[in-house]
Amino acid sequence: MTVEFISVGTEILLGNIVNTNAAYLSEKCAALGLFCYHQSVVGDNEKRLEDAIKLAVSRSDIVILGGGLGPTADDLTKEVTAKVFGKALYEDPHTKSRIQDYFTHIQSKNITSNNWKQAMVPEGAIVVDNDNGTAPGLILEENGKIAILLPGPPNELKPMFEAKIAPYLNRLQPEGIYSKMVKVCSVGESRAETQIKDLLDNQSNPTIAPYAKTGEVHLRVTARAKNEEEADALIQPVIDELFVRFGDNIYTTKEDVTLEDAVVELLKEKHMTVTTAESCTAGLLAGRIMNVSGASSVYEEGYITYANHAKSKLLGVKKETLEKYGAVSEQTAREMAEGAAREAKADAALSVTGIAGPEGGTEEKPVGLVYIGCYVNGHTEVKEFHFTGNRAKNRDYAVVRALTFLREQLLKAERS
Amino acid sequence: MTVEFISVGTEILLGNIVNTNAAYLSEKCAALGLFCYHQSVVGDNEKRLEDAIKLAVSRSDIVILGGGLGPTADDLTKEVTAKVFGKALYEDPHTKSRIQDYFTHIQSKNITSNNWKQAMVPEGAIVVDNDNGTAPGLILEENGKIAILLPGPPNELKPMFEAKIAPYLNRLQPEGIYSKMVKVCSVGESRAETQIKDLLDNQSNPTIAPYAKTGEVHLRVTARAKNEEEADALIQPVIDELFVRFGDNIYTTKEDVTLEDAVVELLKEKHMTVTTAESCTAGLLAGRIMNVSGASSVYEEGYITYANHAKSKLLGVKKETLEKYGAVSEQTAREMAEGAAREAKADAALSVTGIAGPEGGTEEKPVGLVYIGCYVNGHTEVKEFHFTGNRAKNRDYAVVRALTFLREQLLKAERS
Repeated sequence: MTVEFISVGTEILLGNIVNTNAAYLSEKCAALGLFCYHQSVVGDNEKRLEDAIKLAVSRSDIVILGGGLGPTADDLTKEVTAKVFGKALYEDPHTKSRIQDYFTHIQSKNITSNNWKQAMVPEGAIVVDNDNGTAPGLILEENGKIAILLPGPPNELKPMFEAKIAPYLNRLQPEGIYSKMVKVCSVGESRAETQIKDLLDNQSNPTIAPYAKTGEVHLRVTARAKNEEEADALIQPVIDELFVRFGDNIYTTKEDVTLEDAVVELLKEKHMTVTTAESCTAGLLAGRIMNVSGASSVYEEGYITYANHAKSKLLGVKKETLEKYGAVSEQTAREMAEGAAREAKADAALSVTGIAGPEGGTEEKPVGLVYIGCYVNGHTEVKEFHFTGNRAKNRDYAVVRALTFLREQLLKAERS
Repeated sequence: MTVEFISVGTEILLGNIVNTNAAYLSEKCAALGLFCYHQSVVGDNEKRLEDAIKLAVSRSDIVILGGGLGPTADDLTKEVTAKVFGKALYEDPHTKSRIQDYFTHIQSKNITSNNWKQAMVPEGAIVVDNDNGTAPGLILEENGKIAILLPGPPNELKPMFEAKIAPYLNRLQPEGIYSKMVKVCSVGESRAETQIKDLLDNQSNPTIAPYAKTGEVHLRVTARAKNEEEADALIQPVIDELFVRFGDNIYTTKEDVTLEDAVVELLKEKHMTVTTAESCTAGLLAGRIMNVSGASSVYEEGYITYANHAKSKLLGVKKETLEKYGAVSEQTAREMAEGAAREAKADAALSVTGIAGPEGGTEEKPVGLVYIGCYVNGHTEVKEFHFTGNRAKNRDYAVVRALTFLREQLLKAERS
């Protein structure tokens, strides 16, 4: 079955808010095995909303509309959808009494009269109670087409979808779609695709879809099947083949595991701690590692050493090294990593020193030159990188490359 | 003139990424005086993409497509748009040499052959160089309709739009649209809107459009006028009135100045240095301050002290303080800020200690509780915050509140 979303609201068209509902609904519907081929946004305008609903109904089985159910005059979603489905509106006593209760609960003394507009529902619609606001959700079914109307605020839409709409959609499904994610690091997007070109060219069920992320490639393997066991039987051989192609560069096969999660997990497995010494990234690398809740067992302290004298004072980088090779050098990166490990009494350490730009570049040391040092159990390696982005991108890439580098060195230490 | 956006990518339909490009383009195009009535998302599918482009061209003057310009086989935007506009593709030598240079610059030895696909451009198209990637932007003009093709990654799309597409769109406009941005911190969105409700209710030319950002409110003042002088004459009185309403909480009236830019500038003006001592944000605050290129004159070193013993070792936080009040307390935040200033010999210091979640909360100290300390010239203040988001959101808010706090204390020191 196909599903499509229409987000209703002039505030989205003006860029006042980011349409996170669409991303949420996309992910949830994909997980429910629904095919989503279209999403659109329209403003609070009757004619354009009507056209959008008619187009959606003509090409998709299910249309989910988010927003435009509120009390004000420019909230039109319910009225226009009812019109397209040929239904009149009537006042629903159950919803009216819930609205009354809601205002009593929040101790609001004056209910403005336009709030009662929210108790009007289309004939024959399934009314879905809203536990976090006043506008109920609505489901209209007609001629094999379904319209689902949800309130726009994410804190109302999400819990309503989760608790009431997802189970409804699940009951409609004859066949399921199952997918697994294979996340690859240390390999660029084009290179990754070239390595699996034959698989991509000859796929039907399951399919592999590559997604480029900053310094990573995610491969979604999707199968259609009657049930999860059958899906697993289709998906697993593809995942096995991806392991043949990418080996250790696959850091997870779990949807919700990030690169930093994988690195922290690896450190935990090895009962190792890590520290960081950052110049150009100035805390972003540590901040990213600590995205992981509960990473306190692997990370205790870290150093931001932007100035040269801070590199010497906090990390013991030799003055001669800074004078002879400069702050952005293989030698300084090495001494930063070793000094950080020593000071923090950590088993591993990452150091980053480079020229993020736009200022500070020279002919010899251009913007984008970054050295990353990685110390693991007494052994230090340094890599030189040449990033080509703006300041923010160069720093983001440096963070990902550092995490990837640590992962490589931890795996290498394991094998030796 | 009307503009509409088509975001191309199955990864958006699957909910793998949030469509931040659409919000960005919406805001920018609104500022350019273009009317946006539709936005849509389609996957990497030739037929559906073709239908989407035809529909968009039929109802809007300008269609901006984001994504699907990359090197892989499922990147189809250029091919399909060229087909709709009746244009053949040819290899552009200028773009080919730029792609070659890009790979030389990043010292990539093997350019996979699919990369050359990005050098193919439609006949008659304006080629827009991509300074942050390999796929160029493209502008096609035909029969009074315009298609603008932009690379999908936000760090390529945004700078390209800013530097090259916005000026192009501006030249198309019969009347000028001029806007200025007023950025407000220390005031929440609803309070900001209440404070200027009378201005918002009675506006025509210029208009004020409020945008809520994490911990900030941006107010865009837009005027239609024949020229810049006339526009200034309309805009300036509104900006003056906004200063009457918000005073010092306005940190800039420049479009491209960020909160961290403003804070670093204030420190530079006062010839002061700052340092940071971070627990739950673990480097994100320092990383954000150092978003500012050339901030090395105000920031030399900083400390990430996740473990309690690190707070004592690096910052001299007393063991009794940690035992008696705990790591997440007003007293610890105070000693962290004072210790950081002392160790770094800095004029100012920010400290952050809190429970970002999802783990670690207790009845007494729930998830979201964060203390921020701010030391300025011998005087320390601590604020208590209760954030209500997930881990990432709580940490982001802590960073913004810390920057805002430092700004407030610097301005207060100035006045006293």
